[in-house]
Parts: sequence; C-alpha cells; structure tokens
Amino acid sequence: MPLAQARHERLGKAVALAVFASDPLSSVAYATEEILLVLILAGHMALSYSLPIAVGISVLLVIVVTSYRQTVQTYQQGGGAYLVSKDNLGVIPALAAAAALLTDYVLTVSVSTAAGIAALTSAVPALRPYSVLLCVAAIVAIALANLRGVRESGRIFAVPTYFFVASILGMVGWGVISAVFGRLPAQPYEAHRPGLEGVGLFLFLRAYAAGCTALTGVEAVSDGVPVLKPPEGKNAATVLTWLGAISVVMFLGITYLAFDFGVVPGPDETVVSKIARRVFGDSPFYYTVQIATLLILVLAANTSFADFPRLSSILARDRYVPRQFANQGDRLVFSNGILILSGFAIVLVVGFRGDTHALLPLYAIGVFISFTLSQSGMVRRWLRLREKGWQWRVWINGIGAVATGIVMLTLAGTKFLEGAWIVIVVIPLLVLIFMVMHRHYEEVAAELSLEGFEPPPPFRHTVLVLIGDVHRGVVRAVQYARSLGGPDVAVRGVFVETDPARTARVEERWGKWGLGVPLVVLTSPYRSLLRPLIDYLDQIQSRGDDMMVTIVVPEFLPRHWWQHILHNQTALLIKGALLFRKNTVVADVPYVLKK
Amino acid sequence: MPLAQARHERLGKAVALAVFASDPLSSVAYATEEILLVLILAGHMALSYSLPIAVGISVLLVIVVTSYRQTVQTYQQGGGAYLVSKDNLGVIPALAAAAALLTDYVLTVSVSTAAGIAALTSAVPALRPYSVLLCVAAIVAIALANLRGVRESGRIFAVPTYFFVASILGMVGWGVISAVFGRLPAQPYEAHRPGLEGVGLFLFLRAYAAGCTALTGVEAVSDGVPVLKPPEGKNAATVLTWLGAISVVMFLGITYLAFDFGVVPGPDETVVSKIARRVFGDSPFYYTVQIATLLILVLAANTSFADFPRLSSILARDRYVPRQFANQGDRLVFSNGILILSGFAIVLVVGFRGDTHALLPLYAIGVFISFTLSQSGMVRRWLRLREKGWQWRVWINGIGAVATGIVMLTLAGTKFLEGAWIVIVVIPLLVLIFMVMHRHYEEVAAELSLEGFEPPPPFRHTVLVLIGDVHRGVVRAVQYARSLGGPDVAVRGVFVETDPARTARVEERWGKWGLGVPLVVLTSPYRSLLRPLIDYLDQIQSRGDDMMVTIVVPEFLPRHWWQHILHNQTALLIKGALLFRKNTVVADVPYVLKK
Repeated sequence: MPLAQARHERLGKAVALAVFASDPLSSVAYATEEILLVLILAGHMALSYSLPIAVGISVLLVIVVTSYRQTVQTYQQGGGAYLVSKDNLGVIPALAAAAALLTDYVLTVSVSTAAGIAALTSAVPALRPYSVLLCVAAIVAIALANLRGVRESGRIFAVPTYFFVASILGMVGWGVISAVFGRLPAQPYEAHRPGLEGVGLFLFLRAYAAGCTALTGVEAVSDGVPVLKPPEGKNAATVLTWLGAISVVMFLGITYLAFDFGVVPGPDETVVSKIARRVFGDSPFYYTVQIATLLILVLAANTSFADFPRLSSILARDRYVPRQFANQGDRLVFSNGILILSGFAIVLVVGFRGDTHALLPLYAIGVFISFTLSQSGMVRRWLRLREKGWQWRVWINGIGAVATGIVMLTLAGTKFLEGAWIVIVVIPLLVLIFMVMHRHYEEVAAELSLEGFEPPPPFRHTVLVLIGDVHRGVVRAVQYARSLGGPDVAVRGVFVETDPARTARVEERWGKWGLGVPLVVLTSPYRSLLRPLIDYLDQIQSRGDDMMVTIVVPEFLPRHWWQHILHNQTALLIKGALLFRKNTVVADVPYVLKK
Repeated sequence: MPLAQARHERLGKAVALAVFASDPLSSVAYATEEILLVLILAGHMALSYSLPIAVGISVLLVIVVTSYRQTVQTYQQGGGAYLVSKDNLGVIPALAAAAALLTDYVLTVSVSTAAGIAALTSAVPALRPYSVLLCVAAIVAIALANLRGVRESGRIFAVPTYFFVASILGMVGWGVISAVFGRLPAQPYEAHRPGLEGVGLFLFLRAYAAGCTALTGVEAVSDGVPVLKPPEGKNAATVLTWLGAISVVMFLGITYLAFDFGVVPGPDETVVSKIARRVFGDSPFYYTVQIATLLILVLAANTSFADFPRLSSILARDRYVPRQFANQGDRLVFSNGILILSGFAIVLVVGFRGDTHALLPLYAIGVFISFTLSQSGMVRRWLRLREKGWQWRVWINGIGAVATGIVMLTLAGTKFLEGAWIVIVVIPLLVLIFMVMHRHYEEVAAELSLEGFEPPPPFRHTVLVLIGDVHRGVVRAVQYARSLGGPDVAVRGVFVETDPARTARVEERWGKWGLGVPLVVLTSPYRSLLRPLIDYLDQIQSRGDDMMVTIVVPEFLPRHWWQHILHNQTALLIKGALLFRKNTVVADVPYVLKK
C-alpha cells in the first residue's frame, strides 16, 4: 500500500473488522467438518462429542484473543510474530516465526481456495470433477488481480465479509429455531463406513487439534494495528474481541446444527452446505450461503497477497532474504513475491488434489508455532520490562503461550504423518536458508566496509567502440566514447574481421567518419566475433589490475517490438560473455530508428 | 567448420562419398516401403507393380544426377539451390528454394530419426511402445553432440556409411542368390486389408511420387563442392555418379526382393527388416543390417545440423534472416540454429507420433521444389551465358527441371491432403517473412547511411552514480564515473530515499567518500526506486535532444554462483526499465567480492 495512502486512509473499527475478518472468520467454513472427520472414524455415535470439543476450542479462542489483546496494545507499530519474537526472544525464534508465517501465507492461499471451491462444488455438483482446475484458476485470477495492482480498500472488503456473517448467522439462527420448534423432519444418518476406532483420549485430542483450524487468521490483526484510527491499540483490541465473539457464535452454531441434524462428513459436500440445505432446502437462501462462503474464502486467500510481500520486505531489510524484496514500491519487486506465493500455492493445491482436508494438517501447525512464539515473546517482555500491571499480564500471555504450545505439540503429534511433517521439515530449512543468506550479506558488508579504506589510485581507462560496419549509429557511439575521454582515457575503435573482404571498406569509411579515433582490426580465423575480442581484452588488462575497459556498443531502438529480434543480438552476445568479467564495463549507446 | 580447418582438410573422393552419402543413401531404407504402402491399397496383386515403378524412379535418379553433375562443375564455390536460383532466377525463386531447403533440413532430422528408430523397433519389438520417446531422445542426443561441438570429420563418417552400403549390398546379393537358387521357402502373403482401390493411373502416380523419396539428399553434394580436393567440380561429379549408381543398385535390389518375397508393408516392422529376416533369419547378420540402417539414418539426421546453420548464415549475410545467424563462429550463434532445428524436428516427430510414413509426404515436396528451381536456374544460365556446349547442356538440365517439376506437381497433387499442404503453406509464409525482414534491414541501412550526413554537435553528458549506500563498491563506481569526466561532463551521485531514516547517514558518508562529487537525494513517497529515478532522468533530458545520461551502477561479482541472486538485482531492475530509453546508457561497474 502506498505510504501516502496508508497515512491518510486510517480505518474505523467497523471497516477494520471487515478487513481483518475474512481470514479468521472464513475458517469456520471448515473447522467443524475437520472435527467431524476425526470423530466419524469411531462411528456416528462419536459425532456427538463434537459439542464439548467445540466448546473447548472456543475457550482456546477466548484465551488467544485475550492474550493477543495485550500484544496489539503493546505493539502499536504492528506486532506480528516475527517482530515480537525478534524483540524479546532472539534471532532464531524470530526466524522460526517468520518461516512459520511465510509457509502459512502460502497455505492460506491453498486452503482457502480449496475450501471456497468445495463450497462451490457442493452447490453445483457438476463442477466437482474440475475442482483442482478451478482451484488453480482461482489462484491465478487472484494473482493476476494483484499483479495488475488491485489495492485493498476497506469498503470493498466490508461487503462480502458482512454478507458472510449475515448469511451464516441467519442460517444458524433460523436453523436453531426450526430445530427447537421441530419444524424439520428427522433424517437418518447418511451412509458411512463403520467406526473402526475406539473413542479414547487420542481420538479426542486429534479431533480437538483438527478443530483448532478455527483459530487461523487471528494473527492478522496484530500485523495491521497501524492502519487503525487512533487510539490504534485500543481499537485493535476491540476489533479482536468482536472477531472472537463472532467466530465463537458462528463456530458453535454450525457445530450444534451439524450435531442436531446428524450430519455425516463426506468428500462430496461440505458440512456447511449440508446444514444450509437442511435449513433452507434448495431455496435461494441456500445458494446465498454458498456464495457468501466462496467469496469470503477468496478474500481470505487474497489477504496473503498483501501479507507475504510485507513480511518479505521486513525480512529483506533485516538481510535474511534477498535484498530485492525490500523495495515494495517497485512493481517488479512486488510481482516476484506474488509469483512465488501463487506458484507454491498452486503446487500445493495440485499436489493435494484440491482437498481442503488433506491440506489442513499442514496449515494449523505453522499458525500455532507463530501463536506460541508470539505469546512467549510477550511473557518474556513483561518479565524483562516489568511495566505497570506486569504481574497479571504475564499470566494472560503465559496461559496463551502454554495453551497454544500444547495445541502445537498435539498437532505435530497427531497430524505428523498426515502432512504436518512437511512443515516441520520446511520451517527449520527456511531458518537455515535465512541464516546463510544473512551471513553472506554480513560478510559482504564487512568486505565493503570503508573502515580504514584507502581509495586506490585512479584507473587507467580504455574505451573501445566495437563496430561491425560504419553508419550513423556508429558515429553516435564514437561521439559518446569521445565524450567519455578524460585526459587519461584511451579511445579506440575495434573491428573484428569475420569476412576479410569487407575490411578495406570499413577502414576507409572509418577514416572518414571515425572522428579521428584510431581503429584496431582484429583478425578472426574461425569467424568468431567474441574470441578475438576477449583475447584483445586479456591483452590490454594483463598490463595491470587497474586497467579498466569500457566497451561501447551501438544499439538500435526500432519502432516495433518484433524488430528487436532483428537487432542488438551482437550487443546481447557481448554482454552475456563479459557479464562476469573484472574491470570490464559494457555500455550500449542507443540509436533510435524511425523505421 | 573453422575456416582454417576447412582450408586444410580437403576430402578425397572416397571420403567425400562417405560424407555426402549418408543422406541420399539412407533414403533407400524407406523408399520401397512407401511404394508398397500405396500399392497395397489395391490389394497384394498390385504389389508387383513396384518393379516398373522402381525402374522409373531409377531413371529419374539418373536424370537428376546427370543434371546435377553439370551444377557441381559450374558452381565450384558451392551451388546449393538457393545460390543457383539467386544467380539465375531472381530473388523470389531463390527465397522459395531457401525456404524449401530449411524445411527440408528440419524434415531430414524428423524423418531420418523416425526411420532409424523404426529400424531399431523392428529388431527389438519390445521398444515399439516407446518409439516417439526414442525419436525425441535421439534428436536431443544429436543436438547435444552438436552443441558440445562435434565436428564433422570425414573419417568418422566413412565407417558407418560403408558399413551400411556393405550390409545392404550383402543382403541384396545373398537374397538374390538365395531366391534364384530357390533356397528360401515360399511364404504366403501376410494378412492385410482387402484392396479397396482399383489399379489406375492415379494409384500409379501416387506410388511413383511416394517412391521418389529415394532421391532426397542428392542436393547435399552440390552444397559441399568446395570441401573436395581439386579439381573440385570434376571430383564432385564423380562422387555424384557413384552415389547415383550405389543408390540405384540398392533401391532396385531391395524393391526386387520385396516383390520376390511377397513382403506386405505394415506398421510394426519395416520392409527392409522383413527382407533381412527372410534372407538371414534371426542370425547376427539380420541385426547387422538393422544396426547399419539405424546408424546411417542417425548420420543423415546429423548432416542437417551442419547444413541448417550454413544456409542460415548465407541468408543472414544477404539480410533475409536475423543478422545473428551470420556469425557462425560463435558458439551461442551456432547454438541458436541447433536449438531451432531440433525444436521443430521434435515438434514434427511428436506431432506425427514418430511415424515415418506420415512424415514423408511433407518431406519430398520441398526436396523437389529445390531440385526444380536449381535445374531451372541452370537452364536459365546456359541460355543467358551461352558458354561452350550450352546447346546440349541446356537439354540435360532442361530434362532434369521438367522431370523434377512434374514429380513436384504430382507430389503436391497426390500427397496434398496427407500433409504436403503444410509445406505448401509454410514455404510461401517463410518467403514472406524473409522479404519483410529484408525490407526492414534495407530501410534501416538507408536510415543509417552516412550519405550526406553531418555529425551532430557533441552531447551534453551527465553521469549519475546510483547508490543505495556508501561502500567500497560505490567508491569504485565513483572513481569510474570521475574517469569518464571530460571537461563537459557533469558527474553526480544519486540516492533514492526509500527509507528517510537512512538519508542523513548516507549523506554524511558520501561527504567523506564521495571524492568531491555532488550527491542528489530523490524522495520516494511510494518507496519505489525506479519512479523517482525515471522522473529525474525525464527532468534532465527534457532540456534537449542532446542530453546524454550515463547511469553508473555498482555491481558485485560474488564468488559462488548462487550468491548472484543475492546481489545485482537492483542493477537488473534498472537495466530492464531503461533498456529502450533514448539517450540513456547503463554501465555496471563490477566489484569482485572475495566472499
């Protein structure tokens, strides 16, 4: 976001809620389903345990929100997990948080798109065979929209977010009323495989861990504090509370209705779609719920396209990723981030065949790593600074850190084989890469340091104008070369003789148009242009380390794009060959062609 | 081929025969089969017509060879169809010949590879499902060998060529003896579809046209006259005669045996393989014939990898294709030709699923277009120059031109729907492209002409050193910029302020290390690096058409290749953005990093 715009367009609480809500609220579209998919392994009788599990997850959500309320009030300049960890825990935890967040952004795109397309194919079963294709198309469309420069505007976000909240709350409300007043006919459980597992602590833990996907996205607010109207911290805390409250109501409502309706999770239709169908039948209201779900999930995917470049640029300024990510303002730089993000997201969606359920084990673990690190960082901060109220504040963040830490370990344990191992491998690998890059940058900085540096004596500078013929473009290049000529600069023309028949003519024309610059003719027995030139450079530069050579090449700017392939290939060849050569500069002097 | 080598390594007749023979002789591997594949449409009774057709084709071969004997004696500097047509018929026929030859070179690669792999899969049926893959692999292998610089050496060529000639002549000789002395048991005709077409003139013409693929490759000798030992023309004529004689014997022999053995052509095994199996059983001799066939066909494909770049370079010197094809001596230039050739050949092989029979209708038409044009050119030449003996010489080339012209039309007519239409579309298209490129080059040459040109007044030159920080690399770039400073050159440092917090420090360090050069700080409200720079350039250059700006960018040469992605991205960004900008030169000053 342009800084100027960012400074002027501060968001009010209602709009901020909409901006930050798409990611956290959209997760209710799949959280209940994840719980049920674990419980059904023990048969449909086990499905009723979804209620206590959902209550437990809601309690966790309240803990996390309460804990994060303190983060946003403390880090009003933006307190993502990377910054909080760096501030309080040190480099390695901070890099782990950054790695977890970057993988999360990729997974947010994959998971949200897959879940959005699942909402679509639930409503339109004919599209089901094309779901992977639709996922890829959706990611490409979001990436293109961002490449073309769609800017986040609070107003645009508000519409689908509130549309989704209204649809889901309407569905839950109407569903509960209908259920209580017995207006819906009882239905038998759908066909499903017989329960193969016993109901035990492990099943419970897995179901709980699976449902914790409901918490993804809460982090977003802590990143975005500075865009709120002042007092930023207080407003962000209010937004967080509202977010938590709406999340809990929607999540508990959906879970209750799934239980009440005896919904059995399956691969062909989402749980939310099944509930909406029971509540609204095949009426337009049903399709409204599905469209709202699709839209908010697309919006959730889109948030990563702002978050990924932002975190990359912070990491680049700290020299942990290539420097070019630092300049967010240049389109090309921004595009690189978008291409990387959407590329990986597409790989994941295709690799996991667009299956939300298969992708989610990868997703939640990174989220909880960042939660745990961020809350632990806060605990460390209170203990260190002992600001007013630190005694009870340390308890709030401490409970948050411990609770999310336990969930993180549970996720790692229960979901390891289902895919969490990928993230557990990738995060340390990313940390390692960050550290290697950092070390390299630090070493280079030390090498480039001006501490005790004596500027070397001036160069001995030779300027060579490379010509294949003598024409107006060459005359311009010679003029350029001569304008470079300080008192110590030798300027020469160079002609590589690939066809001896032409040499005399070129020499004669150079005599007339070469502006008095001497011409060197290099013979080329093998008709190569490069070999004799490089030999000549070697010869000049063998005279000392201070022999700088500038090769001036006339280049054409034709009028039509396709004409480029007809020109400048020699210049390209030379640049390619001399790209990594010491003390050698290639300067193309453009000549504008009218035809 | 390096010129030096070319001058020294002239070929004797026996070696020259081997060098030029792979392409023309290898075509006997599929010519008979093509005749039979047409005749079988009228049932197996029609197969016996293959004998008179083969005799007719041999007569044509004798006519073409006789006609070409005159070409090679007249054009001792090399008389490919393009040169002969250009010399005698004018630009458009010459370009048509060039287009026909270039498509032929591509098709030689596709057809020869497909036929070679067919020889292989005939011997090893288990490989048949992978034939397309094998074709692609073979083309890639030949291309890689040529990219790595395998040079044609007569001695290497001689071995497989004479091995092939010996194998085929051995098979034919032994087969004829066995057949005459009745040592082979009679076999019934293989199962085949019933004949659906009547035996008529059209079938005859189609079979004749199909068999004319036996003539492909004769052109090669006329291209290569200069590499023979003197007297080049006479030696080339002798080589041609031998080539024709061997071709006729092998072709008639194979066709006779196919008739005598009642071979029915089919998709699973080549006709030559069937004959060899009848003659030799499953003995090593059978495998020898197949291996020899595979080798000579690979060699035939390989000849295109020398011919294609050579013709391209001639066309480039005449300004009909992009100039970069002209410098054959540079590896990169040579590589482009190889990549284009093998790329198209792979597309064809994959598109026609590696089926020689499907590819051949495309092949022969181009060959006969170049024959007809070349012979017509010779006729025109005799009529024009009226050299000694022109009266009877005009007859020889005239008969050649008419005969090949009739075959060309027959091919176009009978094979049109089978694929010849592709070539009939592609050749005029290529001619058009050649002419458009030529016109562009001519226009540019006129625009660049120094006729009546007054050199404009010298530039006003501004040199900007673009910096993001101040370090040793920057000091080096400033030294470079100052060395450019003639009396009229303004040198300035430019710093784009993407993070205002750093400006004061950069200014202070510049004051110390900037070697007295003034520093311009550009503000960047949107954090873009490029936008402020381009605005600044616009501002400088708006002062007049003669405002030349050189932007000096410090660039790093790191020690390891992977470190490149960590550096120089800014330089790349700037070069990309200013690539097509008038009066603007970007000069990277390299700084060698030790770490």
